[in-house]
Amino acid sequence: MNVGFIGLGIMGRPMAEHILRSGHRLTVFNRTPDKCAPLVAQGASPADSPAALASTCDIIITMLPDTPDVEAVLFGATGVWQELTPGKVIIDMSTISPAATINFANRLAEKNCEMLDAPVSGGQSGAQAATLTIMVGGKPEIFENCKPLFEAMGKNVFHLGPIGSGQKTKLVNQVICALNIVAMSEGLHLAKLAELDVQQAHKVVSSGAAGSWMLDNLAPRILQDDFKPGFMIKLQQKDLRLAHEFIKTIGADFPGTALTLSMFTKAVEQGLGEQGTQGFINLYRNSESEFRG
Amino acid sequence: MNVGFIGLGIMGRPMAEHILRSGHRLTVFNRTPDKCAPLVAQGASPADSPAALASTCDIIITMLPDTPDVEAVLFGATGVWQELTPGKVIIDMSTISPAATINFANRLAEKNCEMLDAPVSGGQSGAQAATLTIMVGGKPEIFENCKPLFEAMGKNVFHLGPIGSGQKTKLVNQVICALNIVAMSEGLHLAKLAELDVQQAHKVVSSGAAGSWMLDNLAPRILQDDFKPGFMIKLQQKDLRLAHEFIKTIGADFPGTALTLSMFTKAVEQGLGEQGTQGFINLYRNSESEFRG
Repeated sequence: MNVGFIGLGIMGRPMAEHILRSGHRLTVFNRTPDKCAPLVAQGASPADSPAALASTCDIIITMLPDTPDVEAVLFGATGVWQELTPGKVIIDMSTISPAATINFANRLAEKNCEMLDAPVSGGQSGAQAATLTIMVGGKPEIFENCKPLFEAMGKNVFHLGPIGSGQKTKLVNQVICALNIVAMSEGLHLAKLAELDVQQAHKVVSSGAAGSWMLDNLAPRILQDDFKPGFMIKLQQKDLRLAHEFIKTIGADFPGTALTLSMFTKAVEQGLGEQGTQGFINLYRNSESEFRG
Repeated sequence: MNVGFIGLGIMGRPMAEHILRSGHRLTVFNRTPDKCAPLVAQGASPADSPAALASTCDIIITMLPDTPDVEAVLFGATGVWQELTPGKVIIDMSTISPAATINFANRLAEKNCEMLDAPVSGGQSGAQAATLTIMVGGKPEIFENCKPLFEAMGKNVFHLGPIGSGQKTKLVNQVICALNIVAMSEGLHLAKLAELDVQQAHKVVSSGAAGSWMLDNLAPRILQDDFKPGFMIKLQQKDLRLAHEFIKTIGADFPGTALTLSMFTKAVEQGLGEQGTQGFINLYRNSESEFRG
């Protein structure tokens, strides 16, 4: 199977490497071309444009920051669409708008091409270890055909319903993650202000009903003032914006999600966007130092 | 050792039973006296008042709903204080104000009595299985003397610093729990409104970065519409009020905690107070049915 991979960022690069190692012929494209070099060194072919990539690949995977990036790569002047022939499959593994996803799938269907939405969870470490959770929406038979690719990149691969179901499930995931990050940040910062031994307080609360993946995996980084990204605050903010937009379209009221969006937006405005999500605690530390003069 | 136990509610009763079974002589008091009967049937002695209990006990444990309850039992007209003689130890395992705790300890010191604050986490099931997390503040030597009692009731017993440190750590715990409950509720309700298979969405998000004790332990009850308490919404609301008061006294700003307090208060006002904390999701379901007419 000729596989194309577009978007070799912090997540996309290790994911593409796993596809290459699982024995597929791989063609790669990235807007910043030098990001292709490590993959090419491992045997991938570089493409000059998404269109050029599409001309030689049966399955085209995209892993990009946001909805407009996916739209440009698929339907732009040098986009996949230009060289698309019937029977090809587009798998978008980015986290983007569920409504846009359904729209893209409909446009691709005009050329008799299928689409799966397959956003992931598990961050950079999950991408590197091929332990990602992959949330797939689309036709069951297309999912089955593509399953070996997913299993090369992830450990928990789920087919969740028709096109868009992967993105919707990812939004559920991100709403929970963001609130659990706020929980971790307020808890750890409160422990510090209360003059507790923060390390010990963390150990105590992690063992009980307050326990979470965030406390197990990101809190230790906070305790070491390590704010390198796994998953960047600005991307969490973007996902919350997508969730908020989706919630508005269904006419619901989610005060926790609304609050996390406003707080993550504030964190980005304060210049924390490139930190890992554990750096959200700096929003509290910064306002503290303002408060204390 | 003669141990007294005051407050035989949903948590206190199984905790007192574990003390009895570990071989201590136990005297019990409860404001509603018939709650003493099961303990008396197992060999405990009933007392007519906290004062009467204090006259025969070396160690006096309190497990009560809120700060004023502990104050009344310790310092009221028929309170512990009336019969207190030097060398006795009071262990308050309720969740109450850290500032009030320090105040109570100072007053008890006037009669040369020591106090530990030792709030717990783990809920009714933890109390029954003797697997509670116990967060203790007070003098190290007093903690060591009382450790066998804690180990009869809990699995994870921590000495966290001077008097009040247990309560402060508990507030950290409750701030995180409450936000994780909001996270779970918004996530599961969003899955429902998005017309996903909620059971499957729960399984997917639990396995990754959104994972939490709440998703593992309380979400399955939500999926079965089982809102029986483990830990009641009205008590979670009370703990959030304590946390909010404490945060105000240290001059900090915790928007997530402020939001959870207002939402749990709304849940109590809507009559959800006696449900387990998983019933918090009904706040969303109720507003949804209002919205949809």
